[in-house]
Amino acid sequence: MDKYRVAVLGATGLVGQKFVSLLSNHKMFEVAYLTASERSIGKLYSEAVSWLLPEEIPENVKDLKLISNQELLNLEDYDFAFTALPSDEAAIVEQKLLENGKVVVSNSSNWRMDPLIPLLNPEVNADHIFVLKKQKHGKGKIIKVPNCTSAILTLTLKPIYDAFGIKKVVVTTMQALSGAGIHGVPSMYIIDNLLPNIQGEEEKVENEPKKMLGTAGIEGIEPADFQIYPTTTRVPVLYGHTESVLVELANGGVTIDEVKAAMKRNSWNKINGLHLPTAPSEPIILRAEEDRPQPRLDRGAGNGMSVSVGRLRLDSSGKVLRYIVLGDNIVRGAAGTGVLIAELFVTLNERGEI
Amino acid sequence: MDKYRVAVLGATGLVGQKFVSLLSNHKMFEVAYLTASERSIGKLYSEAVSWLLPEEIPENVKDLKLISNQELLNLEDYDFAFTALPSDEAAIVEQKLLENGKVVVSNSSNWRMDPLIPLLNPEVNADHIFVLKKQKHGKGKIIKVPNCTSAILTLTLKPIYDAFGIKKVVVTTMQALSGAGIHGVPSMYIIDNLLPNIQGEEEKVENEPKKMLGTAGIEGIEPADFQIYPTTTRVPVLYGHTESVLVELANGGVTIDEVKAAMKRNSWNKINGLHLPTAPSEPIILRAEEDRPQPRLDRGAGNGMSVSVGRLRLDSSGKVLRYIVLGDNIVRGAAGTGVLIAELFVTLNERGEI
Amino acid sequence: MDKYRVAVLGATGLVGQKFVSLLSNHKMFEVAYLTASERSIGKLYSEAVSWLLPEEIPENVKDLKLISNQELLNLEDYDFAFTALPSDEAAIVEQKLLENGKVVVSNSSNWRMDPLIPLLNPEVNADHIFVLKKQKHGKGKIIKVPNCTSAILTLTLKPIYDAFGIKKVVVTTMQALSGAGIHGVPSMYIIDNLLPNIQGEEEKVENEPKKMLGTAGIEGIEPADFQIYPTTTRVPVLYGHTESVLVELANGGVTIDEVKAAMKRNSWNKINGLHLPTAPSEPIILRAEEDRPQPRLDRGAGNGMSVSVGRLRLDSSGKVLRYIVLGDNIVRGAAGTGVLIAELFVTLNERGEI
Amino acid sequence: MDKYRVAVLGATGLVGQKFVSLLSNHKMFEVAYLTASERSIGKLYSEAVSWLLPEEIPENVKDLKLISNQELLNLEDYDFAFTALPSDEAAIVEQKLLENGKVVVSNSSNWRMDPLIPLLNPEVNADHIFVLKKQKHGKGKIIKVPNCTSAILTLTLKPIYDAFGIKKVVVTTMQALSGAGIHGVPSMYIIDNLLPNIQGEEEKVENEPKKMLGTAGIEGIEPADFQIYPTTTRVPVLYGHTESVLVELANGGVTIDEVKAAMKRNSWNKINGLHLPTAPSEPIILRAEEDRPQPRLDRGAGNGMSVSVGRLRLDSSGKVLRYIVLGDNIVRGAAGTGVLIAELFVTLNERGEI
Repeated sequence: MDKYRVAVLGATGLVGQKFVSLLSNHKMFEVAYLTASERSIGKLYSEAVSWLLPEEIPENVKDLKLISNQELLNLEDYDFAFTALPSDEAAIVEQKLLENGKVVVSNSSNWRMDPLIPLLNPEVNADHIFVLKKQKHGKGKIIKVPNCTSAILTLTLKPIYDAFGIKKVVVTTMQALSGAGIHGVPSMYIIDNLLPNIQGEEEKVENEPKKMLGTAGIEGIEPADFQIYPTTTRVPVLYGHTESVLVELANGGVTIDEVKAAMKRNSWNKINGLHLPTAPSEPIILRAEEDRPQPRLDRGAGNGMSVSVGRLRLDSSGKVLRYIVLGDNIVRGAAGTGVLIAELFVTLNERGEI
Repeated sequence: MDKYRVAVLGATGLVGQKFVSLLSNHKMFEVAYLTASERSIGKLYSEAVSWLLPEEIPENVKDLKLISNQELLNLEDYDFAFTALPSDEAAIVEQKLLENGKVVVSNSSNWRMDPLIPLLNPEVNADHIFVLKKQKHGKGKIIKVPNCTSAILTLTLKPIYDAFGIKKVVVTTMQALSGAGIHGVPSMYIIDNLLPNIQGEEEKVENEPKKMLGTAGIEGIEPADFQIYPTTTRVPVLYGHTESVLVELANGGVTIDEVKAAMKRNSWNKINGLHLPTAPSEPIILRAEEDRPQPRLDRGAGNGMSVSVGRLRLDSSGKVLRYIVLGDNIVRGAAGTGVLIAELFVTLNERGEI
Repeated sequence: MDKYRVAVLGATGLVGQKFVSLLSNHKMFEVAYLTASERSIGKLYSEAVSWLLPEEIPENVKDLKLISNQELLNLEDYDFAFTALPSDEAAIVEQKLLENGKVVVSNSSNWRMDPLIPLLNPEVNADHIFVLKKQKHGKGKIIKVPNCTSAILTLTLKPIYDAFGIKKVVVTTMQALSGAGIHGVPSMYIIDNLLPNIQGEEEKVENEPKKMLGTAGIEGIEPADFQIYPTTTRVPVLYGHTESVLVELANGGVTIDEVKAAMKRNSWNKINGLHLPTAPSEPIILRAEEDRPQPRLDRGAGNGMSVSVGRLRLDSSGKVLRYIVLGDNIVRGAAGTGVLIAELFVTLNERGEI
Repeated sequence: MDKYRVAVLGATGLVGQKFVSLLSNHKMFEVAYLTASERSIGKLYSEAVSWLLPEEIPENVKDLKLISNQELLNLEDYDFAFTALPSDEAAIVEQKLLENGKVVVSNSSNWRMDPLIPLLNPEVNADHIFVLKKQKHGKGKIIKVPNCTSAILTLTLKPIYDAFGIKKVVVTTMQALSGAGIHGVPSMYIIDNLLPNIQGEEEKVENEPKKMLGTAGIEGIEPADFQIYPTTTRVPVLYGHTESVLVELANGGVTIDEVKAAMKRNSWNKINGLHLPTAPSEPIILRAEEDRPQPRLDRGAGNGMSVSVGRLRLDSSGKVLRYIVLGDNIVRGAAGTGVLIAELFVTLNERGEI
């Protein structure tokens, strides 16, 4: 089978690096083009990138010459565009990619709340992909990758929502430095310290999960109806967002075993049957130890695609559930989910379902 | 005026060090005895202690010889005992100190919930001190210093409780390493990491604040009636506990300006009039900046006795209040509050009020 | 081929964990016994160990029951003992293992300077293994793994010594926390800090490299004759020792290209021909970038068995060489080299050469 | 006495902040003007600065309006200019300040090796100030503050050089993040890591100390004649440069007590007699403990103006001396030394000596 040719836009950033790493040895895709900002254009990828991932730079992209987004827009011989651009820049470029007929898998935050653009976290809401049929953004199609915190959170909210209903969610996050990009957080700001706010993050966490847990209707996605109260902070951790979650269930009387069963149940069977290469065998790993999950020890679970849940506690009324969830913000929270989305698209498209 | 002679029990630990630092140049107190564990007994304080505070070891204690708790119990020429012992050890020693007629200011967690033992955070519940009159633990008197997280939290809950009533509190803490003592958290556990649990902490945070916000009745302190849902975590920060707090107020319709006014109002006037040396001029410092409070920048506020509050947010119903509070866990959360308690005791006692 | 049965002594520590990880899926070895200290005896390995390695605990050791060293000494059905014990304990246990006829690969520092006990870093001094023939420590044989810093250093000193001669070495190390064991360095000591001394380390670094670069003579190993001036410090890095090295060569007039050539040349061909599974293809990786090596980015090179060298500089006289070398202290500096030694022993033994 | 009016150029950076902090409550100086880069001009200092120092922003500068360097050059009513600008920008601005007749105390690295510009570390080479008489850079006078690492190092080299002579110095530094400025080192680069190089630093450390230990002759300063071999690295420490130093003395047979005596002797008496306010009572603090100095515990010594020396070791020949020296890079290594220089200038100038 021929592989689909893909472009990665913003390939030198951390999310871009992970896209490159995941796509360069992928059975469905091959990396055709990499774009970068002004000062890197014309350089080889290996020269321009400040590669920070633990794995080595893939050999087959080392010598790719970086091009500008503008140059890419003039090229035709590729199918997918994976974008990891700042959102203002993304809004312009993505519009043109759609006009050019590309399939865009976008990590940027523009348009995430558009009811006709699926915001996909495949194990949670793979069925939202069918809203693509209503999309009229040009010849192409666009799917958004959720905000990192929301992607990790919704993997756990989905089984709870389906099994018990949700009235309210209170979440305090302790987010990794990599979420701000390579140069995002100066070391002088964060050593022996933490930052009590992440600009613009809470608005996303308030809204994106409700869209992901919503239903696809005539007008597109209609969000689920409950309230989320997020507080988002930055801590001195390289990779792995930790979230302290309290869920007020729709009704009381739930038992802890019912919660565990719900989290283990394969609400994601619909995508498991598709054998998508990047899908983890266990999207949620339940940890029984009191001192887990921990970012450094658990972020790699399921190659970064699983989230780890620990400290499950229900109050005596069986209505207030608390837990800690941890996931890799660059993999599950960005590039990994982007690749999984593309795998879902390819598979359903080849079956003629979208 | 003659100073009161004091003993510090457990003087080589971090809280012990801070007690020593605060008491050794104090206008009411002079350090008479320091106790330590087995392997330090007989050594000079400056030899045995692994001094970690930013200030230098006070000259006048450097050459004090460390004694055992047992030796101390045989001595008579001191008035106050400040304890920073493990709670099982404390329970035994404190009982004997009381039999010996000492005034015990205890940082240990035993007996904190006893309705006849005041759990004092003076700006919050100075009036609880009068429950001492009912104490019959021997000739002495004992007052407990609250758990660090609870001490910091209640400074902010008190004005809210008084002004608006509280239905429910959800709090996620990001606690400093110093809270676990000098050897508490190995560096291999915490660099590029965080720990999602602090053994035994959540139970304290669930209960102590309600006692502190309670009322002194015939049977002793009766706790306030609301629910606290804590999640306590450890982060790579040396000093300063950060708490992400959500308070569901008793009624809606509150405005943010009313909240600010309540926090600025001197609900602590009753102790301000006493001119206690360790009392900060502003127990709560309200920060308007989006990125404050931060542990490294704000833990020193009010010489560690003030807490800093930021990110005040009310939802549209005026009923759900969120904020971040930060305080120095060793000062406001332990030794500083202990010294403030002793100052309150001395002052009221000299006036004949207790 | 039947695998050799091995015991790991001190299996719950960091070096022990790495031994277990490397040996449990090894084509020559199978893990038969694991020993631990008092409070872990009788527990399953997975219950007792505080597993910190990035790889998961191997399935086939999870359920091994931990035994005491004493119990192990009463057992016979194993061939190799890999020890990672404190050196005073090791001295006693290793003597008995030798009396029992075991092959002991020891990571402990006792006896390292004994001229009849090879101190092996196989790429450096594989030939020293033949001194085993003179060993009379019982029916068994014992080989010592060098101190971590010395193991990393000698990989680079060896080609320099062979090509140009060495007059003097000045080395300042910046050593990882893992070198002190799981509980070795409290976080309160090292965050926003470094420690200017590592107890007992400098004496090892002064002497071990000279033994390793020495020659096997009638009386055993005779050390090389030059001076080493070490300063060893601890920095807030989890894994990977960095060493800033200055070598005064025996003669001037050397060029940087000659140094590079010497470092690339296979002075280790003698062991390469043996195809030892743990031997890295490149023991030294030369980095041309000005900002490499870095512990977090380079410690994994060659699965932790390669050292990375950067910042090679020669002064104008061609006599004073400076560089930075970095290696994984747990792999190349301990367990990895231990396993490589055992592979060398097995291979030469099966050929009848020792 | 009227205070001298001063301008701080580059006042929002870390060195600028420390200049502001030290000068705003100084008995000789008052802060008249603060300059900053483009995007801060016109803002109040307290609005524009990202204040990171532990002390609070001084009240009397909070409301100073930031101006551009160009604006400052058009003003006349100030006497001293303290510069903390990037060196290319500094070269242009400082030339104009000199033409305007200002006394310039410059922290920038341009012109540091000019034999007619004193590179002052007052306790080391206060007498070099008299070379100002030969300066003809305009009506003004300019003095350079040494590079941070060199300032800390020379405080210890000076007494050794005077007492024993120096043949060679080998130094490996572990430098604090603050040395690179607020945004200099991204946290993604340095947590669980170190950087093996600091761009441009080693050339400075090779040359500046020799100028500072040199002698003022007819042609200006003539450097001392010995060789320095530096390796400069960056470690995850906020403030405080640590330097591992080996000095080969001119002759052997020196004893450790002679070294200690030399370091304690007041080679700096000449400036002590002047009672300069910023001069520490002990420029060198000798630490006997094996585990000192440490950046977090010792950087504040002498208000940041003292350096702490530990781990003094002499080899058996009495010729090779090793030690660790630590100093605050922002205070002794930059702003503090700058202020001390200005105090020296004022004092000698008022006495008519320069």
